[in-house]
Amino acid sequence: MRILCFGEILLRLSPPNAYRFVQARLFDAVYGGSEANVAVSLAQWGEQVSFLTRVPDNELGQAALGALAQQGVDISHCKRGGERLGIYFLEQGIGRRASKVLYDRAHSGMADLKPGMLDWQSALEQADWLHWSGITPALSQGAAQTLMEGLEIAKKLDVKVSCDLNYRASLWKYGASPASVMPELVGFADVLLGDRKSFLTCLGINSTKETSPDTLLAMVGKTFPRLRFIAMTRRDGISASHNTYQGLLHDGLQLRMSQSYDLPDMLDRIGGGDAFMAGLIHGLRKMSDDTQQIVEFATAAAAFKHYVAGDFNLCDEVEVRDLMAGNTGGKVNR
Amino acid sequence: MRILCFGEILLRLSPPNAYRFVQARLFDAVYGGSEANVAVSLAQWGEQVSFLTRVPDNELGQAALGALAQQGVDISHCKRGGERLGIYFLEQGIGRRASKVLYDRAHSGMADLKPGMLDWQSALEQADWLHWSGITPALSQGAAQTLMEGLEIAKKLDVKVSCDLNYRASLWKYGASPASVMPELVGFADVLLGDRKSFLTCLGINSTKETSPDTLLAMVGKTFPRLRFIAMTRRDGISASHNTYQGLLHDGLQLRMSQSYDLPDMLDRIGGGDAFMAGLIHGLRKMSDDTQQIVEFATAAAAFKHYVAGDFNLCDEVEVRDLMAGNTGGKVNR
Amino acid sequence: MRILCFGEILLRLSPPNAYRFVQARLFDAVYGGSEANVAVSLAQWGEQVSFLTRVPDNELGQAALGALAQQGVDISHCKRGGERLGIYFLEQGIGRRASKVLYDRAHSGMADLKPGMLDWQSALEQADWLHWSGITPALSQGAAQTLMEGLEIAKKLDVKVSCDLNYRASLWKYGASPASVMPELVGFADVLLGDRKSFLTCLGINSTKETSPDTLLAMVGKTFPRLRFIAMTRRDGISASHNTYQGLLHDGLQLRMSQSYDLPDMLDRIGGGDAFMAGLIHGLRKMSDDTQQIVEFATAAAAFKHYVAGDFNLCDEVEVRDLMAGNTGGKVNR
Amino acid sequence: MRILCFGEILLRLSPPNAYRFVQARLFDAVYGGSEANVAVSLAQWGEQVSFLTRVPDNELGQAALGALAQQGVDISHCKRGGERLGIYFLEQGIGRRASKVLYDRAHSGMADLKPGMLDWQSALEQADWLHWSGITPALSQGAAQTLMEGLEIAKKLDVKVSCDLNYRASLWKYGASPASVMPELVGFADVLLGDRKSFLTCLGINSTKETSPDTLLAMVGKTFPRLRFIAMTRRDGISASHNTYQGLLHDGLQLRMSQSYDLPDMLDRIGGGDAFMAGLIHGLRKMSDDTQQIVEFATAAAAFKHYVAGDFNLCDEVEVRDLMAGNTGGKVNR
Amino acid sequence: MRILCFGEILLRLSPPNAYRFVQARLFDAVYGGSEANVAVSLAQWGEQVSFLTRVPDNELGQAALGALAQQGVDISHCKRGGERLGIYFLEQGIGRRASKVLYDRAHSGMADLKPGMLDWQSALEQADWLHWSGITPALSQGAAQTLMEGLEIAKKLDVKVSCDLNYRASLWKYGASPASVMPELVGFADVLLGDRKSFLTCLGINSTKETSPDTLLAMVGKTFPRLRFIAMTRRDGISASHNTYQGLLHDGLQLRMSQSYDLPDMLDRIGGGDAFMAGLIHGLRKMSDDTQQIVEFATAAAAFKHYVAGDFNLCDEVEVRDLMAGNTGGKVNR
Amino acid sequence: MRILCFGEILLRLSPPNAYRFVQARLFDAVYGGSEANVAVSLAQWGEQVSFLTRVPDNELGQAALGALAQQGVDISHCKRGGERLGIYFLEQGIGRRASKVLYDRAHSGMADLKPGMLDWQSALEQADWLHWSGITPALSQGAAQTLMEGLEIAKKLDVKVSCDLNYRASLWKYGASPASVMPELVGFADVLLGDRKSFLTCLGINSTKETSPDTLLAMVGKTFPRLRFIAMTRRDGISASHNTYQGLLHDGLQLRMSQSYDLPDMLDRIGGGDAFMAGLIHGLRKMSDDTQQIVEFATAAAAFKHYVAGDFNLCDEVEVRDLMAGNTGGKVNR
Repeated sequence: MRILCFGEILLRLSPPNAYRFVQARLFDAVYGGSEANVAVSLAQWGEQVSFLTRVPDNELGQAALGALAQQGVDISHCKRGGERLGIYFLEQGIGRRASKVLYDRAHSGMADLKPGMLDWQSALEQADWLHWSGITPALSQGAAQTLMEGLEIAKKLDVKVSCDLNYRASLWKYGASPASVMPELVGFADVLLGDRKSFLTCLGINSTKETSPDTLLAMVGKTFPRLRFIAMTRRDGISASHNTYQGLLHDGLQLRMSQSYDLPDMLDRIGGGDAFMAGLIHGLRKMSDDTQQIVEFATAAAAFKHYVAGDFNLCDEVEVRDLMAGNTGGKVNR
Repeated sequence: MRILCFGEILLRLSPPNAYRFVQARLFDAVYGGSEANVAVSLAQWGEQVSFLTRVPDNELGQAALGALAQQGVDISHCKRGGERLGIYFLEQGIGRRASKVLYDRAHSGMADLKPGMLDWQSALEQADWLHWSGITPALSQGAAQTLMEGLEIAKKLDVKVSCDLNYRASLWKYGASPASVMPELVGFADVLLGDRKSFLTCLGINSTKETSPDTLLAMVGKTFPRLRFIAMTRRDGISASHNTYQGLLHDGLQLRMSQSYDLPDMLDRIGGGDAFMAGLIHGLRKMSDDTQQIVEFATAAAAFKHYVAGDFNLCDEVEVRDLMAGNTGGKVNR
Repeated sequence: MRILCFGEILLRLSPPNAYRFVQARLFDAVYGGSEANVAVSLAQWGEQVSFLTRVPDNELGQAALGALAQQGVDISHCKRGGERLGIYFLEQGIGRRASKVLYDRAHSGMADLKPGMLDWQSALEQADWLHWSGITPALSQGAAQTLMEGLEIAKKLDVKVSCDLNYRASLWKYGASPASVMPELVGFADVLLGDRKSFLTCLGINSTKETSPDTLLAMVGKTFPRLRFIAMTRRDGISASHNTYQGLLHDGLQLRMSQSYDLPDMLDRIGGGDAFMAGLIHGLRKMSDDTQQIVEFATAAAAFKHYVAGDFNLCDEVEVRDLMAGNTGGKVNR
Repeated sequence: MRILCFGEILLRLSPPNAYRFVQARLFDAVYGGSEANVAVSLAQWGEQVSFLTRVPDNELGQAALGALAQQGVDISHCKRGGERLGIYFLEQGIGRRASKVLYDRAHSGMADLKPGMLDWQSALEQADWLHWSGITPALSQGAAQTLMEGLEIAKKLDVKVSCDLNYRASLWKYGASPASVMPELVGFADVLLGDRKSFLTCLGINSTKETSPDTLLAMVGKTFPRLRFIAMTRRDGISASHNTYQGLLHDGLQLRMSQSYDLPDMLDRIGGGDAFMAGLIHGLRKMSDDTQQIVEFATAAAAFKHYVAGDFNLCDEVEVRDLMAGNTGGKVNR
Repeated sequence: MRILCFGEILLRLSPPNAYRFVQARLFDAVYGGSEANVAVSLAQWGEQVSFLTRVPDNELGQAALGALAQQGVDISHCKRGGERLGIYFLEQGIGRRASKVLYDRAHSGMADLKPGMLDWQSALEQADWLHWSGITPALSQGAAQTLMEGLEIAKKLDVKVSCDLNYRASLWKYGASPASVMPELVGFADVLLGDRKSFLTCLGINSTKETSPDTLLAMVGKTFPRLRFIAMTRRDGISASHNTYQGLLHDGLQLRMSQSYDLPDMLDRIGGGDAFMAGLIHGLRKMSDDTQQIVEFATAAAAFKHYVAGDFNLCDEVEVRDLMAGNTGGKVNR
Repeated sequence: MRILCFGEILLRLSPPNAYRFVQARLFDAVYGGSEANVAVSLAQWGEQVSFLTRVPDNELGQAALGALAQQGVDISHCKRGGERLGIYFLEQGIGRRASKVLYDRAHSGMADLKPGMLDWQSALEQADWLHWSGITPALSQGAAQTLMEGLEIAKKLDVKVSCDLNYRASLWKYGASPASVMPELVGFADVLLGDRKSFLTCLGINSTKETSPDTLLAMVGKTFPRLRFIAMTRRDGISASHNTYQGLLHDGLQLRMSQSYDLPDMLDRIGGGDAFMAGLIHGLRKMSDDTQQIVEFATAAAAFKHYVAGDFNLCDEVEVRDLMAGNTGGKVNR
């Protein structure tokens, strides 16, 4: 049975060589997006994965799907339609200069999605897991409703559901507030990834900086009793090129925390959280109930992503496990 | 006094090395667009030129205006606002494979223009010439109305008006037909550039292939009596890399035809018509009534454009005149 | 039912910008090879295609298969193993300087193939067509024997077989002569592509320059009575950048010749014959018995390939048909 | 009223990817130079800025001025003439390998400047501030005399003057010593930037390592009583990729020191001092008498420059203030 | 015994992709120059060649010499010194836009050469042939005198001398006219290459367009009786991308003309004449008295050069002979 | 007298910008290999160096030798022959992701070497030093025997011998174990470089982590009494971008240890050990018996290599000595 990832795939354009936007005479082009990134990670690690989205019927839509197929993701359920492919412009930061993202994804095939456009039934019949993120309901009412449509079918078909809250303030522009939309959707989830801010904004879970992760995740669990696993990540931004990263996972009983990774000389941090999410899903599917191992794997996957260019975390399971096991990267692999 | 060019400036993204869209891992980025191209040509040739447009208040908008300023175009009247910068994707053709343009310019700052947003009065007070093209009224009703707003002020201030019909079927999407919008706008023009198809679609001027250019332009002149000069260009597309090009200019009395240029090994044909338009404006301003010289200059400028990468025809007047005078390009200039 | 293409996929390395090998500080890297190119063409045009090969179990093997998957080719039957991925170095010619190919494909996973390594049975059970080329039996005795193994299963399963003789003198190095190996293999084919030289060298069919194509193909047909269709192509090499190209198809009764294409300003001629072969297969499957249409489609596909960078002929059926219909490439597609 | 920056604009050529000069097959080309860098910074922050220089009447001179215009700097007073455009070759250092500069600027339009060539009068009439640096008088006697010519007019027109001593031993080649030329020129300045070594070499101010900055700047102030503000910067070169940076400003009464910035993963340190100088000028013009704020702003601007490729510090005031306020760069700006 | 080539080696900077100078953000960097190009061609074809020049003692000088050594040219006699390495900027033309050269070579190590700086004696003792071109005496009086110094030693050592007049009007700037300098220098030559214009300007040989090459070369021969071979080339510049090329050689008795080459789709014409000169020298040394073969070889070498990027004609003798024998370039060399 | 370096020169292909192999659409191409790297370092520092190898008679072999000649290495003894040029693919690591090397060097001209193929006699007659590494005997029995052939002639001619054990487990594939091959070969050496692991695997010298370097090197010295100098290096791999590096040298009496270098922001660590080896040879030849200075120089050379792209350590002796003297790289060299 497959994992079905539902979301948008975007064209990402970023000036090479750490140039600023105003200096760009070239843009590096890759395809990505939160849920697509999750799908690709899972496929790299041997999972059967299918992606569900809507892209315009033009060469850019074609190229976006080809990028998924190249990494082993099934694209047979994807729909062609809509006005344009979503784009995001990324100015890679360095040192004391932060990275910048300019979203240009309004009016895309995904943003203009309406219920009935996708064939959820056949996509979900081959799946036992559905993953979505808070980016989709942020795009438009139609996208939010289409997600709901899928969640209901998933429930009927007894498909597990994971959700990454992925709160981006700059995306919620169509009038609805996250808090008015997200709780109902999250109600379908078995697995949730978020952080303090998104728990507040999307789910109305109030906490202070003093609230321990343990307490916080327990509060979330109480509010959404269907949730079996709740996860968080902690990032410390020493500079645009140097972060630390740690993952936390609560299984309803206990909080497990991964080792904390020191991440110097970062290459591309975009998709770190998606790599974590993918690691979580893979762990929950393949590492039985060893929550410590699961959170360690997910965090190592996220850590590795900081050293892979583009949105996709192109690495195999062995590389993730090497990092978990303490490989510093300091030796040449011959 | 200045020439004011009103229109959109776009980000143009095209895969290098004649790659197809689906192969692109890089996009060359330049800024351009029909009216911007006219502005830049005029500035290269020593005219005082100002550009009027609306770009979003972000780095891409900033870069677009910077590209104009770099070439000597005044941008002080430009307005910041709107959701996004218009984009067009260009797949450069070669040999038997035609070039492709994918427009992604809906919902741009220019497309979302509404009357009252621009300060036409102060922009036109410093101008004695206003240039616009049929692309603007194709974008949206608001853009068409904003143009009308400007044309009326131009009339009051006795500013000359030139128009390039620039008919692009794929742009007229907001409901209005060209024929219902363009004639009123063209009624303000002193100078017009078009071709058989645009005269029909935009102005309702019916002709057959047998109608001579002389008769055709005379028909246009009769319908729009304010027009002092009407121009056409003829292109023969031998291949994506080899065209011929000729210009025609009617001054109400007589038709003048330029020499026909053989254009092998073309580098970038985008903006050829804009270079012609700029040559026409420059000629009408600086070459008194020598219509033969004017059409020769405009055509040579257009011919030269085929050998300059990007939208802008970066060349000086001497280079255009050399081409007019028969320079084949076969000697190295040391 | 699927088309199964059997052959090698290589890493192709070529210096950009028409640099010579000795000048190269960069190599453009794509993946390709005769049979892979056929597979990708067919997938672009909507056929279900599977590729069968053996690549080493390293990142280069992975990347090669990913390149096929990206274009919609099924890679689930491919085998991992062998010492290295075959490479070919390509120095793109221009004008009076011819292109050069340096093969570095000895000792590859495909060259070291032995009978029993591949699962022909399951690959052919899902197929109704098997395509191979003369490159495979040229690599090694093991490769030739493995091909024979497949052909026999194909015969049992009543799978149609097409063969492109693809004679490359520099590849036959393991001791056997083409004439001692090929006839038996060609005996399984229903469809054959070759040229005068390959008919002689591989099949022992003697002809002179005076022999008409009609007679020549009839001679081949007589020798290999299983053949239903025999095709040839004719290329005139005016320069490295300018060729003409024509296709011929004999259906046992009659010879059909396509229009001849003038191909100026060529971008990349590698894979032209493979595009023809793919067009032939697609035509034979989808255009019933209209041999004139089939040979026209195949030739137009080959002509188009000269304007697509890389080994793969990335274009859709509409683009091929436009070229057949006389599109010169001279107009911009907006 | 405008700020007038007087100096040279150079073509800067540097091998990409940290290649050494002897490895370079490509050079990245940007335009810059100390005073031009100051001008561009000021224009980014909303000041009206004009640049005064002399460039050859060829395409490189044109491109150099275009680079300034693109960033909003007025170039209408620039003069065309001279034999060549000054060039500097930059080999970017990394880690333990220091950056290298090869000057190739002798015999440039600026170096061959003679009094009377520039129209100081009209340039200064629109200005209330003149900025120059010690690089200009280092180039040639004519350049030094031309500067003197301007300073005298500035004095008459009551234009404020700032000077960056910018001592480069390798530039003083025409026979005069800095100490014989600079004091008279510095005598016109209201604002001065230098360091211990340049105070000694250019102004003859003797100090030891033990002399406190406070004392040192006071000594300078005593010698040049017209000076209202004297500034210094301190850089610690941990490696070619990691420095620390701090600014100091003395207002005649008191020394203010900025926070010290830790600058890991530096991208391009060239122009750091120019960014500081620009910050100083902008601060002195816009931040009334808040010398602490001024030195903090100038230092943050310099710090930011280390993360912008090229000579120009392309950043807006908000980005500088964010850095002042403690933004580490560790968060993505969406 | 070696061939000694005396002249300047320059850094050549040219914008890639047929960009114009004002568009360049990158420059492709190669090293070349007329006499260096001759040296490299000769080394490719198996001659022992030494280069004599003066380059600055910095990394650019080092890189220039390394480029020669890489191609097998001995650099052990080269001298380090002078202020800068000569540069020339090349804007590659295309189609109707001509190529442009901007010389920036004044004040180079070669231009500042003075008699006594080079060790002619030891360089010439190992040589039996000395090649120089008219570019050197055009640079400065010192360069002209240094050449004379060498020619006199060559005479004493009975070293053969060849000269390419290579007249470039824009280089003769130091006061002397070519006609006052060249005749004495050419008096030492055994072999001469020129064209009608250079014979007039440099040697004072008056001819009209009606003068046949035969007569013209005979006139030159009469004036310089030491000359054994006099050669000319004819180029027809159909466009910047398409020329024709033919060589002529007079041996005192008879004029031999090569076949005329049609050169479409040219890649880089710089150095065509130098390739011809090298072919001439090689032919005169290795093809006994077969003047027809010699001029055919020289012309084919020149023709080939149009398809090699950079100044150097990187090709072996077989490739030149293939072109002589009628190879159109239309076949792939596998 | 010359230093003769014997070994393989390879084409090194690595994806730019820290891309992973599967992402590569371009490969940066340089030439290198352990012994070639030693040769180039020595030539940069003014030694007379000759390289001895066997490369295929094609353009890649030619380019490989040209790369050596460019850096001043004599290639006149190199032999053309064999099937292919050895290749190695390098994926540059960064931060927590380690570099990867994929060897594709089997069946190369060097690997297929047989005794009698090279002219050792004439190569060694001009030499007083022979350097080889453990990579050559790892390639094949023929390569090992050819080395032995050379060592015996070296002994007869009284040529000093240095050896870098350079143990690479993945290369020993032809059946022999290092321990069965290396001791006899090392028996000819005067100078040896190795590390604990290679001493064990190649020489059978057993030690534990507790064995001090002093004791260990003494053990090696006892086993191979001809050795005058034995060296080791110590690297601590903090990350793929940050290492520390220290050298040790035992002269039979005493162990000398260099300062330890902190190497942040590494650019290219490949060839670090080769740079050390070259430094050792140069030191032993030019720094009399100052073993402390020798090991400091060798270590500084190795440290510098981490900041030079490619295999070759392109730097002069001054730069190495600056690093020895404490230059952090933090200042711009103007």
